[in-house]
Amino acid sequence: MDGEVKGRAGTRTIDVMGAIRAKIAGRALGAGDRLPSIRSLAATMGVSPSTVVEAYDRLAAEGLIRARRGSGFYVSPTVTPPLALTEAEPRRDRAVDPFWVSRQSLDADESVLKPGCGWLPPDWMPEDALRRAARALARNDASVLTNYGSTSGALALRRLLLTRLAEDAVEASVDQLMLTGSGTQATDLLCRFLLRPGDTVLVDDPCYFNFRALLRAHQAKIVSVPYTASGPDVTRFEEILGSERPRLYITNSALHNPTGTTLTLQTAHRLLTAAAAHDLTIIEDDIFGDFEPERSPRLAALDGLNRVIRIGSFSKTLSASVRCGYIAARADWIEHLVDLQVATSFGGPSPAATDIIANILAGGGYRKHMDELRQRLTRTRRDVARRLQALGVEPWLMPRGGFFLWCRLAGGKDATAVARAALEDDVVLAPGNVFSVAQTASDFMRFNVAHMSEPRMWDVLRRALKAGST
Amino acid sequence: MDGEVKGRAGTRTIDVMGAIRAKIAGRALGAGDRLPSIRSLAATMGVSPSTVVEAYDRLAAEGLIRARRGSGFYVSPTVTPPLALTEAEPRRDRAVDPFWVSRQSLDADESVLKPGCGWLPPDWMPEDALRRAARALARNDASVLTNYGSTSGALALRRLLLTRLAEDAVEASVDQLMLTGSGTQATDLLCRFLLRPGDTVLVDDPCYFNFRALLRAHQAKIVSVPYTASGPDVTRFEEILGSERPRLYITNSALHNPTGTTLTLQTAHRLLTAAAAHDLTIIEDDIFGDFEPERSPRLAALDGLNRVIRIGSFSKTLSASVRCGYIAARADWIEHLVDLQVATSFGGPSPAATDIIANILAGGGYRKHMDELRQRLTRTRRDVARRLQALGVEPWLMPRGGFFLWCRLAGGKDATAVARAALEDDVVLAPGNVFSVAQTASDFMRFNVAHMSEPRMWDVLRRALKAGST
Repeated sequence: MDGEVKGRAGTRTIDVMGAIRAKIAGRALGAGDRLPSIRSLAATMGVSPSTVVEAYDRLAAEGLIRARRGSGFYVSPTVTPPLALTEAEPRRDRAVDPFWVSRQSLDADESVLKPGCGWLPPDWMPEDALRRAARALARNDASVLTNYGSTSGALALRRLLLTRLAEDAVEASVDQLMLTGSGTQATDLLCRFLLRPGDTVLVDDPCYFNFRALLRAHQAKIVSVPYTASGPDVTRFEEILGSERPRLYITNSALHNPTGTTLTLQTAHRLLTAAAAHDLTIIEDDIFGDFEPERSPRLAALDGLNRVIRIGSFSKTLSASVRCGYIAARADWIEHLVDLQVATSFGGPSPAATDIIANILAGGGYRKHMDELRQRLTRTRRDVARRLQALGVEPWLMPRGGFFLWCRLAGGKDATAVARAALEDDVVLAPGNVFSVAQTASDFMRFNVAHMSEPRMWDVLRRALKAGST
Repeated sequence: MDGEVKGRAGTRTIDVMGAIRAKIAGRALGAGDRLPSIRSLAATMGVSPSTVVEAYDRLAAEGLIRARRGSGFYVSPTVTPPLALTEAEPRRDRAVDPFWVSRQSLDADESVLKPGCGWLPPDWMPEDALRRAARALARNDASVLTNYGSTSGALALRRLLLTRLAEDAVEASVDQLMLTGSGTQATDLLCRFLLRPGDTVLVDDPCYFNFRALLRAHQAKIVSVPYTASGPDVTRFEEILGSERPRLYITNSALHNPTGTTLTLQTAHRLLTAAAAHDLTIIEDDIFGDFEPERSPRLAALDGLNRVIRIGSFSKTLSASVRCGYIAARADWIEHLVDLQVATSFGGPSPAATDIIANILAGGGYRKHMDELRQRLTRTRRDVARRLQALGVEPWLMPRGGFFLWCRLAGGKDATAVARAALEDDVVLAPGNVFSVAQTASDFMRFNVAHMSEPRMWDVLRRALKAGST
């Protein structure tokens, strides 16, 4: 909004060029499309018309756009830009967007501490069971070690999963269940199946940041509904269904990411009633369900897998390395989803991976592992919450389970500034606005309590919180 | 083309309803679009106007379409049909389309013989090396067993791959290489990055059938160039680039699937010259490259990973269960592709999988395994070719390596009919037209020589060839 400053004209020109390039890369402008008029873009960007002319001339010299005499500038007909989800930038300086936390935490080396990440440390995972399962794999039939998987995934694991779904009161038959490469790939496959570019998708605010990244990859229009301590704000949900007509709603009912909230039965019923009235499909991502102390209501159970699709994986409870996800949905949809998975992944998930997971689930060890995990997390959540409160970092609610605490930073601190400061000291945090479509969580932060035992982490957090206050 | 027959009017109505449903499912008709006029559809489908009226009335009763007084029928505004790549049909009766061979061979049980499939039997794969690598995985760091992978995939495997690429004269740096879940996922990721719905993509005729399935999932317009014994017909290639302006060309340069052809150096040069003139991007899928007796020219080597993208995997040589693919491309593209893989798969491929593959590649065993495989395949190709010739099944050429023989059935037999007959006897064949966009390969068939040792297979083939003649 600041006026043009002399001597910065060069920078301004580059800004305008960058804005046009971003529109083309983001596909807001396609081959042959007319560019904004010089006057209107100058007004929008708060620059002089001559700056826009200069920028357009330089883009034309690069061949990205073309001038047509008397009718303005157009994107070159041969330009079909690749789908860039972010601006390419050096690692540390990347914009703090939905990719920021993923890339910083996935690519961090061992010296980096990651209270911002979304998974448990190795020593919280069932290491012995995984080693036993890998040895069992080494002794298994050659076909398990060498062959592609069947298109719906290994039947043995699907049968085990059906039993587990029945414990959540989700009744499904074997033709309503398919295995996928991961929980993310399950959601991605469903988005391919259900969405077209430009379709509207509803998510929670806040929500898992990678839903935003994924939906951006599908070129969906993302709208959000505020999340309360009993689930999404139902009145707003109903209004949005009427006004925005979303095709799809993606949510976690049990131990919602990042808030740790559990949907109430009454909210679940009202959501489904509204969904039926507006023919809305719902993806219920149950990835944290096994961390609940006792089972809460699931949309998929109430709905009977009609308009609700249940997905999940074992990345949080067993292994994120040996990956496998699943989709439970209407049988006629599964048939098409299997085709889509053949086309895009050729076959179901790795038989070696599904063998390892089925091995662990079939043994009694998984239940014991989860019992121990839940107890350890209950203690750790309480301890970490107390230490955070002492720093003026207040949990929004105390979740019934899981490893996340969604916290407000006292004094209106800017969580993004805190996260940037912590990264300088090799600590990856998860600032609130990466979870917020409406960008309403600037003073929130998600903490993973299982990654907060190191004294160094607390030193860095203390310093970063100070830096975030300035 | 046959006229309407009395008593079949009900069937005709259902045919018309099915055709409209297919158009909506295939997204040729979207919400709010006008349906074809009753007269024009009646003429197109060779039915009476009253049949179309009946079909439209029934679809309107179902709510799929709506009548507007005086202006015809329209797709209901609330319809956003899922992306169905095929008509859902019972397994055995499925249309013989690009999915037919995949689904029949991936889902076949052990009693089914699969000379139509695209991979080696378990006893041709390096079983001992895989068992050793699985045991080594069981002893590895907990983080390899439990953690997500880094976003570009394990550095150790990327380094090994760079060495192997250099053997093909493809010089790349580590930031030009990323690992993916599989070779198919590599191609899929690139299609997401490079294509928009409606973009034109060029493939060979014949080509790997799953390229067609994948491109259909991306809603691309598929055009094809005839394949000759030295690569694609270059004159036609140049013409198509001028007339169709494809965004992308997908091919195998070494041991092309299904023909087994190897691109000549002169053809490679002419393809790249034409590609440069029309700003065409090329995906070179090198999945069969390691089966070559000596290295042939690669487009990626000539081009220096500028407009050519190299992909590959180890599914054909090491294991299709322990899956991992890769993309070698321009570094600025890799950066965006990594984002796309985070959004759609969350992280790179399984660290457990890349650990197993790196373990085998780093040992000397892989080279020895491939040497033995090549020798065994040379003998087997020759033996199988001789037995096929005795049945009037003539190899189009004798490939320098690999496990495919692309053969013409003498006497103009219909390969689809032969394949349907063989499936009745639990033998999966790969009829020519599933590889052919232009449907010009009705008397061709692809045989996998490694799956043809069973006497029962030959009995079934002999009978099926007779059935295909009638």
